[in-house]
Amino acid sequence: MNLDPILSETLDAATKGYPLSGPALPISAIGAQRWSVLAGDLPLPLAVIRDSALAHNHAWMRDFTASTGVLLAPHGKTTMAPQIFAQQLAAGAWGITVANVHQLGLCVRFGVRRVLMANQLLGAAEVGAVIRLMEEHPDLEFHFLVDSQAQLAAIEKIAAPQKMSRKLTALVELGLPGGRTGARTFDEAIAVARVVAASKSVALSGLECYEGLQIIGDSGRDQIVVDGLMQRVHDLALACDREGLFAGPSIILTAGGSAAFDIVARDLPMKLSKPVLTILRSGCYVTHDSGFYNRMLEGVKSRSGTAWQSRPGLKPAIEVWSRVQSCPEPGLALLTMGKRDASFDLDMPIPGKRYRAGIDAAPQPVPASWKIANMNDQHAYLRFSADEAPQVGDLVGCGISHPCTTFDKWRALFTVDDDYRVTGAIRTFF
Amino acid sequence: MNLDPILSETLDAATKGYPLSGPALPISAIGAQRWSVLAGDLPLPLAVIRDSALAHNHAWMRDFTASTGVLLAPHGKTTMAPQIFAQQLAAGAWGITVANVHQLGLCVRFGVRRVLMANQLLGAAEVGAVIRLMEEHPDLEFHFLVDSQAQLAAIEKIAAPQKMSRKLTALVELGLPGGRTGARTFDEAIAVARVVAASKSVALSGLECYEGLQIIGDSGRDQIVVDGLMQRVHDLALACDREGLFAGPSIILTAGGSAAFDIVARDLPMKLSKPVLTILRSGCYVTHDSGFYNRMLEGVKSRSGTAWQSRPGLKPAIEVWSRVQSCPEPGLALLTMGKRDASFDLDMPIPGKRYRAGIDAAPQPVPASWKIANMNDQHAYLRFSADEAPQVGDLVGCGISHPCTTFDKWRALFTVDDDYRVTGAIRTFF
Repeated sequence: MNLDPILSETLDAATKGYPLSGPALPISAIGAQRWSVLAGDLPLPLAVIRDSALAHNHAWMRDFTASTGVLLAPHGKTTMAPQIFAQQLAAGAWGITVANVHQLGLCVRFGVRRVLMANQLLGAAEVGAVIRLMEEHPDLEFHFLVDSQAQLAAIEKIAAPQKMSRKLTALVELGLPGGRTGARTFDEAIAVARVVAASKSVALSGLECYEGLQIIGDSGRDQIVVDGLMQRVHDLALACDREGLFAGPSIILTAGGSAAFDIVARDLPMKLSKPVLTILRSGCYVTHDSGFYNRMLEGVKSRSGTAWQSRPGLKPAIEVWSRVQSCPEPGLALLTMGKRDASFDLDMPIPGKRYRAGIDAAPQPVPASWKIANMNDQHAYLRFSADEAPQVGDLVGCGISHPCTTFDKWRALFTVDDDYRVTGAIRTFF
Repeated sequence: MNLDPILSETLDAATKGYPLSGPALPISAIGAQRWSVLAGDLPLPLAVIRDSALAHNHAWMRDFTASTGVLLAPHGKTTMAPQIFAQQLAAGAWGITVANVHQLGLCVRFGVRRVLMANQLLGAAEVGAVIRLMEEHPDLEFHFLVDSQAQLAAIEKIAAPQKMSRKLTALVELGLPGGRTGARTFDEAIAVARVVAASKSVALSGLECYEGLQIIGDSGRDQIVVDGLMQRVHDLALACDREGLFAGPSIILTAGGSAAFDIVARDLPMKLSKPVLTILRSGCYVTHDSGFYNRMLEGVKSRSGTAWQSRPGLKPAIEVWSRVQSCPEPGLALLTMGKRDASFDLDMPIPGKRYRAGIDAAPQPVPASWKIANMNDQHAYLRFSADEAPQVGDLVGCGISHPCTTFDKWRALFTVDDDYRVTGAIRTFF
C-alpha cells in the first residue's frame, strides 16, 4: 500500500482533538511531538487508540486465523482507515472487505488490490466506477454480492455498452428468513447462481453469507444457528460446483463478523472441485471494544479450546477521554463528550479510568458504581454512588461498545503509548 | 466571514457522496457541474440539503425573531458548517453558539466574532486557547458558562500566570433539578455569580439556562415548565443586578433550543439596570427535520398566534437518499444507507420520496405503509404492505429526525435545487 498521501497530509486545529494552539503538522510529524493526553496537551473529548492493544489484536487474529487455516479480509467499514488496512495486510490479511463502492475506491487509491464488497452492487455511477477500476488496475481482484436476478439484470444493462477486458466477479449471497439481504432459499439462490454463471458481464466467483446479526452470546444456541447456515452454504456450493457454475481457478466461500468468527472458521471450510478460499470478514477485532464484542469474545474463547482460553484475548484498544465539567447534584457528573464523540447504539460508553492532574501519577481504575446513564449531543451523564464522586476537572477515560460507530465520529484518532503520549494519528475516510 | 479557504478546498471521490469517477474540484466549482442526484451522477447513500427549504427556514427564523425582538445565536454544533454560519449571520443572527473550544476556534478562523459557548470552560489547553484567541482578536466577543466555584477556581489557576489585556466573560448557568449542567438553586447560582464578579480573570456578562431537554410536546405542560425556569432566571438576574455583579455595558440572558424557542422568546426578555440582550440559541431550525423537531413545531405554531399558524412553518431541508438493494422477502426491502449515514438516535429515518429511473419524471410520495424499522451500520430495513412494494434499484429519499446526528456523519453535504441537481457542497468540521 501507499500511505504517503495520508502521512504527508497536514492536520491542524480544524480537526477535532488536535491541539488547539498547536502548529499545523503533517501526520508523519505528529508522533515526534510527544503530546501528553494526561497533561492536557490535546483538547477533550479525544478518541485514542492504544498502540499496545492494537498490536496485540493484530497478532492475536493472525495467530487465530493461521491456527484454523482460514483467510481474513477484515471489514474495512469499521475503521475506514487505510493506515489500519496496511497493518492488517502486513499481519497477513488476504484482502479488505468494504460496504460500498466509495469504500472500494479508497482501498484502491491507497493500494489494496484484493477487495470483497459485502453488499449488493447497483447503480450507474457505482457499476461504472467498478468497471473503470477493474480496467485501470488489472491486478485488482474485486468481488461483490448478488442476491436477485433483478439486481443482475440491472448490472448487465449498465455494463453491456461498456468496454470490459474482463468480467466482473460476484458472490451469490445466501440469506436467512427474517434476516437482512441474501436469497432466502436454496432454489432462489441457485437460480441466481445460474443466471450469474450465464452472464456476459459477470462471473460467479463464490458464495457469501453473514451470520453476525444472529449472534446473541448464548453459545449453545449461537452454534446451532451458525452450523445451520454454514450447512446451507455447503449444500449450495456443492450444487453450484456440480453444475460447473463457478468460474475462475478457485472458489471463494466467505462469512464471519466479529462475534462468532470461530464457528465460521471451523464450519465453513469444505472441499470442492477447485481450491476453496475460506475468508472471514471480521472487522471489529482490530480495536475490539469494552462492550458488545468484549462480551461475545467469551463465547469465542470458550468454544476454541484450552490453548485459546488460557491465552489473553483481544484487548479493547479504543478509548474516548473527556473531562468532568460539572457535578451539579449528588450522584451526577457531566462529562464533555456526547453522541458526536462516542458510540451509543449498542451500549453507552463504559467508564474505565480516571485521572486527576497533580494528584495521580497515572490513570486509576474507576469505582465500580460509575456508569454512563445517557448522552446528549455534547454531554454524557455519569452516575455514581455518593462516596465515589469525581471532581470538576477530573479526566475520565471510557471504553466503547461497537468500534464502527466511534470511528465514524472522528476524522483522526490519535494513537498513544501506555503513558498516553501521542505516537501518531490515524486518518479516517467516512 | 471569510469562506475562501473552504470554497477553494478541493474535494474528490475520497469524500463520501462525491461522484466516484468525477474530477477533483474546488468546492466553488461544484455547482456548475449540474450533477443530477436522480440520474445517479452521485453514489448513494447521499445526504442533500434542499436550497429552497434552507432559504425558507433562514427567512422564517429571521422574521420570527424580529417579531419578538429577541436576538439569535444559532447553535453551530448542529451543522458545524461555516458556510451555513455565514448564511445565518447574513440573515441577521447576532452570533454563533458552540459546544466547546474546538468549535470556537473554527468560528474564529472563518471570521465569526460573537460566540457563546453553551458549556463549561475547563482544561489547560482549552482555557489557554481562549485567552490566546481573545488576545489575537480584540474584536472577539466570547462568553462561556460557569456553574460551580470549583470550575471558576480551575480557570483562575490557569489564567493567573498569563498575560491578558482583558478579562474573559462568563454567563452563570442556572440548571434544573434532575437536569444537566447548571447550578440547581438560587443560592448556589448567586454564590457562583458573586465569585465570578469578584474574579481577577473573569467578568460576569449574564445568565444562561437551557429548557430544551424538558420539552415533551405537550404544550400546556411545556409552557408551565419553561415559564417556571424563565421566572427563576428573572429572580436571579434581578438579584445579580441589584448587587451590581454584571460587568460590561449590557447584560446577556440566553436560553432556547429548537423545540420551544417561542416560549423563551416571550418569557425571557426583562428590564434591568442596563440594556438586556435576550439571545436564543436554536440550532436545528436551519434545516429543520421530518421527525422530532417537526412534531415540536406544531406546539411552536399553536402557541404563536394566528399569523404564525396560517404561515408555512419551517420546512425539512435535509434528506438522505439511498437505493433499494434487495427485496428478499415479502414486506421487506434493504436500502443502501445505515447508521453511518443518517440519524437514528431519536427516530429512524422517515421515507418520503421514491424515484424509479426511466419511469418517474420526478420523485413521487411514498406509500403510507413504508417505514424504516431498523438500521445496521450500512443497511436500512424498509417495511411495507404487500401491495406497495418497491423494486430493486429504486431510489428512496428519507427525511431524518434530529439534524445534528446526520450532519456529523458527512464531511460534505450537497445542496440541491428542487429538481435534485447539485448546486454546491457544504463542508462540515466534526
